Amino acid sequence: MIRIALDAMGSDNAPFADVEGAVLAAREFDYEIILVGNEGLIKKELEKHKPVPSNISVHHASEVIGMHEQPVLSVRRKKDASIVVLGNLAKEKKADAIVSAGNTGAMVCAATLKCRLLKGIERAGIGIVMPTLKGPMVMIDAGANIDAKSSHLLQYGIMASAYSEYILNKKSPRVGLLNVGEEESKGTGFLKEAYGLLESSGLNFIGNVEGRDFFIGDCDIIVCDGLVGNVALKVTEAVAYAFGEMLKKELKRSLLSAVGAVLAKNAFASMKKKLDYTEYGGAPLLGIDGVCIIGHGSSNSKAIKNAIRVAGEEVVKNVNQHIMESITARKEQ
Amino acid sequence: MIRIALDAMGSDNAPFADVEGAVLAAREFDYEIILVGNEGLIKKELEKHKPVPSNISVHHASEVIGMHEQPVLSVRRKKDASIVVLGNLAKEKKADAIVSAGNTGAMVCAATLKCRLLKGIERAGIGIVMPTLKGPMVMIDAGANIDAKSSHLLQYGIMASAYSEYILNKKSPRVGLLNVGEEESKGTGFLKEAYGLLESSGLNFIGNVEGRDFFIGDCDIIVCDGLVGNVALKVTEAVAYAFGEMLKKELKRSLLSAVGAVLAKNAFASMKKKLDYTEYGGAPLLGIDGVCIIGHGSSNSKAIKNAIRVAGEEVVKNVNQHIMESITARKEQ
Repeated sequence: MIRIALDAMGSDNAPFADVEGAVLAAREFDYEIILVGNEGLIKKELEKHKPVPSNISVHHASEVIGMHEQPVLSVRRKKDASIVVLGNLAKEKKADAIVSAGNTGAMVCAATLKCRLLKGIERAGIGIVMPTLKGPMVMIDAGANIDAKSSHLLQYGIMASAYSEYILNKKSPRVGLLNVGEEESKGTGFLKEAYGLLESSGLNFIGNVEGRDFFIGDCDIIVCDGLVGNVALKVTEAVAYAFGEMLKKELKRSLLSAVGAVLAKNAFASMKKKLDYTEYGGAPLLGIDGVCIIGHGSSNSKAIKNAIRVAGEEVVKNVNQHIMESITARKEQ
Repeated sequence: MIRIALDAMGSDNAPFADVEGAVLAAREFDYEIILVGNEGLIKKELEKHKPVPSNISVHHASEVIGMHEQPVLSVRRKKDASIVVLGNLAKEKKADAIVSAGNTGAMVCAATLKCRLLKGIERAGIGIVMPTLKGPMVMIDAGANIDAKSSHLLQYGIMASAYSEYILNKKSPRVGLLNVGEEESKGTGFLKEAYGLLESSGLNFIGNVEGRDFFIGDCDIIVCDGLVGNVALKVTEAVAYAFGEMLKKELKRSLLSAVGAVLAKNAFASMKKKLDYTEYGGAPLLGIDGVCIIGHGSSNSKAIKNAIRVAGEEVVKNVNQHIMESITARKEQ
């Protein structure tokens, strides 16, 4: 049975949302789920979910890395933090995949340090599965590596292509390079170099794409450095939030609007579901010699459950094996 | 009377939207408006707006730089392009301000080349006035300079502060540095350097901000390099577009939803106005020794009118003088 270790202390609502998500996943999937964190707190939380599925176990970890702690330092100092213990379980092959909705930087650091990188990969990248008008799209890197080289961007393209093909079932996914314009001549020296590498990579490279190509869905993978990707991701969240707030306020302004809002409720609910990140589970940290899924801090139990589902799929579909084959094939060309 | 030269060949709907916007502005404001572009086409367009206000004149320019032409090359080659002629009019002090909704890169290039930079400014930056839940905010740079140094970011902060104070009437505007996290230690070496410069600048620097701070309005100015800014701007446009499309589709799905949508119409209209970029006019190109406003390619006549309004205000309020004083004051410290 596939063993997935989950950071029970990860999300903003830990251990509540994390433990509930684990229970939902344990009931739905044939995975062995190891809850990592404060044993007392976890067991107390599990009490609420009786009967506790037999495929859930607890692995004690005495420390927690907070959302605002410095990643490298905290991973080095807190040797018994849940995130560090996750890394150890993966390293010692006691877990096939690890999942956390905690401090992203610390998880990237612990996973990279403990699992090491796949052969031929220089840096891990966070792939975010985002909704578009035409189905899901992967943006990589969302912030694992903010000082990227052009070769890293090529590797992101290769890794996300394998992920997209085997997890999102897209044949020959279209890869775009995030830039300030479509023309090949656009961008910094770094981006022009990355363009050249991607063009001769054998991937289905469609050239430069722009911020306006997000959500349209004419591209399956958007490759960028972690700084730009992080800003792009957070801006989309900000717009969605602001849009929602404005709409709420406006709809309360008059009785007619309010009545209209009630009638249009189903439409809103259906749209919200389409935009709902929790549906896609967490974000894969691609490039490490292991499977690691990073959830949003605000993950609810459904998001945690879906992150566990995706982690299991990545193991079953052997995405890392496909990445390695893709790297080797390119080297032999 | 303030003289404003407008690129009549600029917008996607040129010369229609541009000429109509000029007519609206000429009727509303005491500016002399010089329409630059193909005289025949402009005059034909003006025919539709009789009586043509006497404060509108036409300055012939035989060439046009298209939206997809390479900026530097096209400015060098097309010496009689409307955008290049705008630059010349500003240089020769025949126009107090220039406005174009055409090729942004070409306008930046022509304006910088012809007007030169203000003393103490190393690079011009495009400031975009964006709506937030609490009023307008300026993001700078939206793409004039994609290979920025940390000193450029400091200068953006200084210029946008003057703009924000004198055009948006904000006392001591709060300046944030766009980064991947709030902590001072975050980001690349380039961003850490910029942080240090902004911190000791005497500006109202509030530290690092993130993509999620867009639209919230707890910050009056967001400073970033042109690559990140360009992506952030275009992503917001993409989300807003996708959100609108999804909502439209969902609302058509059932009779109840559709009825609800009709009732909630006023709410939508009011919200749309709040998010409406055309309300804020175009984007100032800050740092040049002159006044240049760049409009969105999709500008309608209202947006053109507002861009002309803002250009005039920048001249009246003497923003450049305030920028220079701010630079000098900091040097003398």
